[in-house]
Amino acid sequence: MLEKLKEDVFRANLDLVRHGLVIMTFGNVSGFDRTSELMVIKPSGVSYNEMTANDMVVTDLNGNVVEGTLTPSMDTPTHLALYKAFPGIGGVVHTHSTHATAWAQAGTAIPCLGTTHADYFYGPVPVTRRLTINETEKDYEYNTGLVIAEVLAGRDPQTMPAVLVNSHGPFTWGVTPAMAVRNAVILEEIARIASLTVSIAPPNEIDKHLLDRHYLRKHGSSAYYGQKK
Amino acid sequence: MLEKLKEDVFRANLDLVRHGLVIMTFGNVSGFDRTSELMVIKPSGVSYNEMTANDMVVTDLNGNVVEGTLTPSMDTPTHLALYKAFPGIGGVVHTHSTHATAWAQAGTAIPCLGTTHADYFYGPVPVTRRLTINETEKDYEYNTGLVIAEVLAGRDPQTMPAVLVNSHGPFTWGVTPAMAVRNAVILEEIARIASLTVSIAPPNEIDKHLLDRHYLRKHGSSAYYGQKK
Amino acid sequence: MLEKLKEDVFRANLDLVRHGLVIMTFGNVSGFDRTSELMVIKPSGVSYNEMTANDMVVTDLNGNVVEGTLTPSMDTPTHLALYKAFPGIGGVVHTHSTHATAWAQAGTAIPCLGTTHADYFYGPVPVTRRLTINETEKDYEYNTGLVIAEVLAGRDPQTMPAVLVNSHGPFTWGVTPAMAVRNAVILEEIARIASLTVSIAPPNEIDKHLLDRHYLRKHGSSAYYGQKK
Amino acid sequence: MLEKLKEDVFRANLDLVRHGLVIMTFGNVSGFDRTSELMVIKPSGVSYNEMTANDMVVTDLNGNVVEGTLTPSMDTPTHLALYKAFPGIGGVVHTHSTHATAWAQAGTAIPCLGTTHADYFYGPVPVTRRLTINETEKDYEYNTGLVIAEVLAGRDPQTMPAVLVNSHGPFTWGVTPAMAVRNAVILEEIARIASLTVSIAPPNEIDKHLLDRHYLRKHGSSAYYGQKK
Repeated sequence: MLEKLKEDVFRANLDLVRHGLVIMTFGNVSGFDRTSELMVIKPSGVSYNEMTANDMVVTDLNGNVVEGTLTPSMDTPTHLALYKAFPGIGGVVHTHSTHATAWAQAGTAIPCLGTTHADYFYGPVPVTRRLTINETEKDYEYNTGLVIAEVLAGRDPQTMPAVLVNSHGPFTWGVTPAMAVRNAVILEEIARIASLTVSIAPPNEIDKHLLDRHYLRKHGSSAYYGQKK
Repeated sequence: MLEKLKEDVFRANLDLVRHGLVIMTFGNVSGFDRTSELMVIKPSGVSYNEMTANDMVVTDLNGNVVEGTLTPSMDTPTHLALYKAFPGIGGVVHTHSTHATAWAQAGTAIPCLGTTHADYFYGPVPVTRRLTINETEKDYEYNTGLVIAEVLAGRDPQTMPAVLVNSHGPFTWGVTPAMAVRNAVILEEIARIASLTVSIAPPNEIDKHLLDRHYLRKHGSSAYYGQKK
Repeated sequence: MLEKLKEDVFRANLDLVRHGLVIMTFGNVSGFDRTSELMVIKPSGVSYNEMTANDMVVTDLNGNVVEGTLTPSMDTPTHLALYKAFPGIGGVVHTHSTHATAWAQAGTAIPCLGTTHADYFYGPVPVTRRLTINETEKDYEYNTGLVIAEVLAGRDPQTMPAVLVNSHGPFTWGVTPAMAVRNAVILEEIARIASLTVSIAPPNEIDKHLLDRHYLRKHGSSAYYGQKK
Repeated sequence: MLEKLKEDVFRANLDLVRHGLVIMTFGNVSGFDRTSELMVIKPSGVSYNEMTANDMVVTDLNGNVVEGTLTPSMDTPTHLALYKAFPGIGGVVHTHSTHATAWAQAGTAIPCLGTTHADYFYGPVPVTRRLTINETEKDYEYNTGLVIAEVLAGRDPQTMPAVLVNSHGPFTWGVTPAMAVRNAVILEEIARIASLTVSIAPPNEIDKHLLDRHYLRKHGSSAYYGQKK
């Protein structure tokens, strides 16, 4: 079942390695099929170069394995919490990519310091609050998804397709697994430029009118970037 | 038309990727033919590894497409403003290369801290002022070109073939598209060395006599670098 | 003798290069056979790309060469001190990997700032005290092993498979040479993320409950990471 | 003439590129034959991938071209000044490698913060004073060699095979061109680790007894590193 989505999720997981976002098994990608309400996700602790598309695990919204012989990623409940909270998304990525993780560890939102950032993320990339002892000791992975949703409460997650989990690392999403990976790649680059920027001068936020101009020329009804469809 | 220039512009765009100056579609190169007053530029949002020389778009000085089926880069008006302002140049590059962008985001000119810099840029690499709301909301890309020209007012743009646009990133130029790319590569390296330098000690500008010596031994009538032509 | 271990140690040494942990001959891996109490180690100052599995040197616990025509690594006494002090380990790695060495040179333990760290190291990665003049002038390499054991006194070395030697660099270990290399790779990455983190904000230690959750979900009797064996 | 040395110098120049120490034509290597008192050096401004061993230029100690059709490197007088000042050396390298250049631009000697440094450089790597206007305007390249020799006055240049030229970049040397390149590679790495170290904590110099131990176990009559000859 969901052979096309398994192939997409498999390739998206390999793309994390190709883009230098993960070492060892420090990351995972899932895809979600809105019709069947089933998720396809990387198996837990399997190395990227031994994995095949067939090893991808299919689960329902409660995390029950529907197809596949391997155990799904430990982060399965986080992914599921995001698919429930954000109805428009079809792919989720989690990495420990170097620079985005540094901001998450600093417990600091990535300020919007320039147009590279504004082209893809409509404002600072938020960092979650820390989880409480109770949230950590019980249903930890699911609660991780909930604090991500909490920090975006009332916002369209498509305009901010990334959140940093405090003391942990980034999650990103998109309409497809490939778009979620693209957002993870760009997040890592803007995190890198931002940490260099603040090493040169105190943070210097972009003007609101420039943020609007850049974000809106690439997204929404008045976008004019790229080729006409 | 302009087949040779299309080929040059195409190759120069690929060189941005090869030198690690761009990820995704974060950059563009154009070339300008002074005789016909036509510009050749990368199409908007097309990925570098799917592009051919034939996809390059030809426009006139007002940005009208003269040849090509694709939409030209969104930054077309910026490039045109620079060809109008700087009569001697034949190539323009825009990137979001990591270290040069960090200085642009810091809103800080890159100080001339050593001979690596002095060999190619005759003094600090300037940063533009921020654009006003009006400049951002109307003719934004063209106004970006105008503030670049403004910050170099009264200077020979050949002696300072790069400017950082505030909260944005670098533009570079040269006699040809290939020379503009070369300047973008060197700008990124001197930006990188400069950010490391200021992390070690407060900025320590090069002596004026050393700047003159290095810049002038490579440029102008008394240059003695390289092989005799 | 110990042909399989020689092959493992040989490959583990090459993996240091492949993972970018060493330049020149700045590193070495050994393996230890608990049955025969013999160690296999890289020869001293031999370049990685000229070495064969057969060049690995076999020594006893006193450092006497039991097999092999080459001189063993200068760091042989340090490795032996660790095999004596830590009964459960079967592999030791020493590198001068860039970021871990920077923390060692700073004389600062790597604080546990996030889950990437907590997944593999159960708390801050300790730094040894400096060696005294006497410890340096006589049996220097053996004493280096002793200060590593000293800083872990009373702890299970499996829960902290890395120590930074002050003014020097990291040593890591594991059940096998390959696991010791894996720990060296992860140590370098968490050292890198940590130095970026403290450049953004003052150190912000992970909560104890989150450290426990992450370390214990991957290690010990209640671990639930990876595939069932 | 000097065909073997030309080949060595040619390969050493390519090694600068292979080790990532130079971009564009930002570096050069020479070799010196003590018998004939002739130097072989890279031609000026020729790109590394178009160069052949035959393009190497032979000069005498006064910089007169003895063989070769190309103009020698602009830095020829600096190299010659070093061969005159340091009788034991047979190879000189000049680069603008990123991290060593950052320290040169900071006008700061690289402190000896650890054993990686102590294994190759016997103390802090010195930085020259700035050149005066007169030294810059007349015989600039030769004077650059003189300030390098000045900062090492009274010391054995073999124990400190590198100096940073203030506001400029590193020069290194060795018994052969290949050894001079090796020293340039290691200098860049220790400069990189040092800049990371001082970003974590204030400089923390190595103890004198540890410096002695490390330097002397690899160099001089009591060395015990590597294989017996």
